[in-house]
Amino acid sequence: MMDVKKILSEYSKRFDGPIDEFLPPEKPDNLMKATVQYPQAGGKRMRPAMVLAAAGAVGGNKDKAMPLAVAIEYIHNFTLIHDDYMDGDEKRRGMTTIHVKYGGPTAILAGDALFARAFEVIAQLDVPDGVVRDVLKVVTRAVWDLARGQQMDVNNENGEEVTMDEYIETIRLKTSVLFAAGAAGGAMIGGADKRTVDAVHEYAMLLGVAFQMFDDVLGLVGDPVKLGKSVGNDVRKGKSTVMVTHALKNIKNENIMREFRSVLGKMDATEEDIRKARKIMEDAGSVDFAIEMATDYTKRAIKKLDVLKDSDDKEFMIALAEFAMKRDV
Amino acid sequence: MMDVKKILSEYSKRFDGPIDEFLPPEKPDNLMKATVQYPQAGGKRMRPAMVLAAAGAVGGNKDKAMPLAVAIEYIHNFTLIHDDYMDGDEKRRGMTTIHVKYGGPTAILAGDALFARAFEVIAQLDVPDGVVRDVLKVVTRAVWDLARGQQMDVNNENGEEVTMDEYIETIRLKTSVLFAAGAAGGAMIGGADKRTVDAVHEYAMLLGVAFQMFDDVLGLVGDPVKLGKSVGNDVRKGKSTVMVTHALKNIKNENIMREFRSVLGKMDATEEDIRKARKIMEDAGSVDFAIEMATDYTKRAIKKLDVLKDSDDKEFMIALAEFAMKRDV
Repeated sequence: MMDVKKILSEYSKRFDGPIDEFLPPEKPDNLMKATVQYPQAGGKRMRPAMVLAAAGAVGGNKDKAMPLAVAIEYIHNFTLIHDDYMDGDEKRRGMTTIHVKYGGPTAILAGDALFARAFEVIAQLDVPDGVVRDVLKVVTRAVWDLARGQQMDVNNENGEEVTMDEYIETIRLKTSVLFAAGAAGGAMIGGADKRTVDAVHEYAMLLGVAFQMFDDVLGLVGDPVKLGKSVGNDVRKGKSTVMVTHALKNIKNENIMREFRSVLGKMDATEEDIRKARKIMEDAGSVDFAIEMATDYTKRAIKKLDVLKDSDDKEFMIALAEFAMKRDV
Repeated sequence: MMDVKKILSEYSKRFDGPIDEFLPPEKPDNLMKATVQYPQAGGKRMRPAMVLAAAGAVGGNKDKAMPLAVAIEYIHNFTLIHDDYMDGDEKRRGMTTIHVKYGGPTAILAGDALFARAFEVIAQLDVPDGVVRDVLKVVTRAVWDLARGQQMDVNNENGEEVTMDEYIETIRLKTSVLFAAGAAGGAMIGGADKRTVDAVHEYAMLLGVAFQMFDDVLGLVGDPVKLGKSVGNDVRKGKSTVMVTHALKNIKNENIMREFRSVLGKMDATEEDIRKARKIMEDAGSVDFAIEMATDYTKRAIKKLDVLKDSDDKEFMIALAEFAMKRDV
């Protein structure tokens, strides 16, 4: 069994240099500081690792995929800056968020600047021009979808109750498409044929859904200390996660349903309230249901990799999918 | 003498179809409505007109440049959406701005979505892959610079006094680079050699500076009715325009200087205050100085076009530069 955390951490170190290199300081200072803060801060950096692994797994040169890896991480960070501002979040990875530190306008501009730089970096890829165009198509489509997904999430949090299918579509747009664009782009740069690119693209799409679903589970039943954040916030926001949607459909007892609904969307719900809501969802089988569903997505993701020859990179991609389900953070 | 307004209006109609075509409706509805509002509303559409004219002026096929024209207009509109939000502006072209109508989060996301779509459209250009890469490079750099310029403007309005050179650099970044990227991109698509692309690029860069400088003049001495907005707001914001910087350097009388400084940056300055400040700048020769400077930029812009053969498109580009100085709106 591969040590995914260790490999991710090795990859992460490998990105430090290029992430700085493609963002040399310019004027004005405050914008530059705001722009580099999230990329330099690290985090799991799963998305860029996926780009390099995909390039390697199809038999390509990983170094050639490095600029795309950096670009995908910039795009991820640009969306975090904008999302943190619109969600009013004050902390990210232990740091003060950009809009709190530099003001809302600078948060918007730092996001825009990172976004622009991501595509400037893609334009510099040392691959045939046709590959640049193909990468551009899949990545631009992903960013368009990210905006749609975030808007659906905003609408959802504003109290619109959504079906399970709609929720999964939101996850797909908010999380999967960027994983998928990175993996597909890595495979393109690695010289894969269309069938292989499509398989890798679908692998990452399914993995992204599994990852986010399990993230929702952790956000309810995880360890707040390990997670570095309080649990139950999705319940407070009244978010239609798989668990919530399942519970609303499967709770038969009227009193329990009334109790559940009284906590759902209650922004100032106490820890005791959250414990109750969690117990109700566990009893209704909603947590198990979400874990089973995420596991199914993981299996389908791994199955897509059958088109690839065996390699360390393929093994890492499989392990990464399994990691999505076994982690505690 | 060409009727620039008439030609711009003909171009503008030509863009209506493609602007809609590249933004077919998807989900969610509120994001889509927010995304199409500015592009569909029109405005002068000078930037996309410049793209087609540049493609034609170098002997190329204008139709092939249409997707870039649309992309440049989307980028312009994305920056307007974000700028309006950060500036807190409530009206644009007589319409309610996006953040007021749909909320701040949707304004951020609609800008991001338009930005992404712009590059998706560039990826679809019917030109050799190498040209797509070259266009991508110049346009991504422009968007990076736009963010820098807007941040400088934000810093400037926050009371940092800047030199004239710094102010012109801000204008160059905020206004010129997108004109220039559009013109250069149009020339690339039209098949121009590097020397011609560079000349067209510089033409538009100089024209952009002249345009914004004259805009500042109109914002002080223009007709509020024709402009559709009140005058003197740059003075209220304490913005270091060419006129203000010139006046601060050239007013010799201490009492007049004190009076001028008392209005500068006074957000609630009355119309009478503004009239006084304007008179002081006129007496100091600051308004004439700004007009002369803008005229000089216009002349230098037109001179750059010497590399082009005579054509209607070249004539339009010259007329557009002259229009920058002769307009009353």
